[in-house]
Amino acid sequence: MNDDAVITSPANQTIKDIRALEMRKRRKETGLFMAEGLRTIIEGMELGAQMQNVVYLTTLSARPDIRRVRDYCLSCGGRPLEVTQAVLEKLSHKDNPQSVIGVFKQNFKTLADVKPGKCWVVLEEVRDPGNLGTIMRTIDGVGADGVILVGNCCDPYSVEAVRATMGSLFCVPIVTATQDEFIAWSKTWPGLIVGTTLQDSVDYRTVEYKQPLLLVMGNEQAGLTEPLRKACHSIVRLPMNGRADSLNLSIATGIMLYKMLED
Amino acid sequence: MNDDAVITSPANQTIKDIRALEMRKRRKETGLFMAEGLRTIIEGMELGAQMQNVVYLTTLSARPDIRRVRDYCLSCGGRPLEVTQAVLEKLSHKDNPQSVIGVFKQNFKTLADVKPGKCWVVLEEVRDPGNLGTIMRTIDGVGADGVILVGNCCDPYSVEAVRATMGSLFCVPIVTATQDEFIAWSKTWPGLIVGTTLQDSVDYRTVEYKQPLLLVMGNEQAGLTEPLRKACHSIVRLPMNGRADSLNLSIATGIMLYKMLED
Repeated sequence: MNDDAVITSPANQTIKDIRALEMRKRRKETGLFMAEGLRTIIEGMELGAQMQNVVYLTTLSARPDIRRVRDYCLSCGGRPLEVTQAVLEKLSHKDNPQSVIGVFKQNFKTLADVKPGKCWVVLEEVRDPGNLGTIMRTIDGVGADGVILVGNCCDPYSVEAVRATMGSLFCVPIVTATQDEFIAWSKTWPGLIVGTTLQDSVDYRTVEYKQPLLLVMGNEQAGLTEPLRKACHSIVRLPMNGRADSLNLSIATGIMLYKMLED
Repeated sequence: MNDDAVITSPANQTIKDIRALEMRKRRKETGLFMAEGLRTIIEGMELGAQMQNVVYLTTLSARPDIRRVRDYCLSCGGRPLEVTQAVLEKLSHKDNPQSVIGVFKQNFKTLADVKPGKCWVVLEEVRDPGNLGTIMRTIDGVGADGVILVGNCCDPYSVEAVRATMGSLFCVPIVTATQDEFIAWSKTWPGLIVGTTLQDSVDYRTVEYKQPLLLVMGNEQAGLTEPLRKACHSIVRLPMNGRADSLNLSIATGIMLYKMLED
């Protein structure tokens, strides 16, 4: 098979394999994920992410940015795929059509990789990929250190999460840990561990946020579990002045991060 | 037709009409919208929203909370609809199945209804219904006054926006205005008008936020247009310390609201 040939059939096996990365099971088996859009892909390239494939419309093949991405893919030992519109439509989402799609290697880290800096965000059983991606984008924006996913979280490499990061997923380290691992590790943390919840908490404006910080946020419905609550040194709350009894998880995380790091 | 009869056919015309409220066109024609889940519906009831229908599973008909909602619907001159599981599945979304669905009258207000208070949030051409709903939830949470939608915005009464408000849509006034209307009206505003954007802006920590405030936020992609920018007294920016060049719109709005009202 000629590697330079344009793929014209949506039934092509490599295309089918890439499309299958929409399923968490396949992402887990392969250790790969899909990223949409040239801007995000260039972000991955600039940060040295391992690129397995870049899929692009054949009509764009002469463009300098596409050639750069293709060369980078080859330098990673990956395979660029030039395709027709019909093939690209098979991979692209109707609500967000793209002319370039990248396939990258996942890059999960462990607690042993965590270096205390300004602030790591700890998410316990986060369920909504949009929230997770948006929180990663905010971590990048405010200049925090990374995210630690505790317990059974949604996948940061799902299409929806990757999209919500707007490219920030390549520069925000992602650590995974079980609840037991995290609790044991947290005992050695040299700075303040802050949790947020409404009960038995103090106003978020009354705490001195001594770095290095861990900001611990609970699940969208259930909040923090008792074991993680106990691992925190301070439990704070954001004032709720209306009828709503809580904020969206990513909003509360954003407000806390800017308060702790930029106030 | 017996109004108390259980609806067993998904082809029932009233059920089809309710389902059609997923389309913006139908919402516009009827002035109605759909709200999912008992918690949100009770919120609407407690705040006196005009209820046209409540659709509930026939097996729940004896429950006191369902009876209360049904009585409220009748008191509004509306029609409660007892249905089978098959009918409910026709109305419910797979990703968020519910056993109760309400149909309410929309309640758009105009600039003439705006009373200066703590802070109104002005959104120019907001496009993402999740962002809009989340911002309305945050407005409720922080105790701000309401939202003013300028120009061609997404619909606050779409299923996705309503869901993201988590019930707050019934207590957050929604005002719509054209750009020209808003700019003329803003000249009479008695307090500070604050916009956010990266260029030609000052650090958000350096401004004294004198109430009554207008917080003006631009479109997700394009930011603030020049005419709205000129209507602002102060243009501020949130520090961006990483590779990301912006925050998600709802995150930036949440950080600004807590900074301005709770700091």
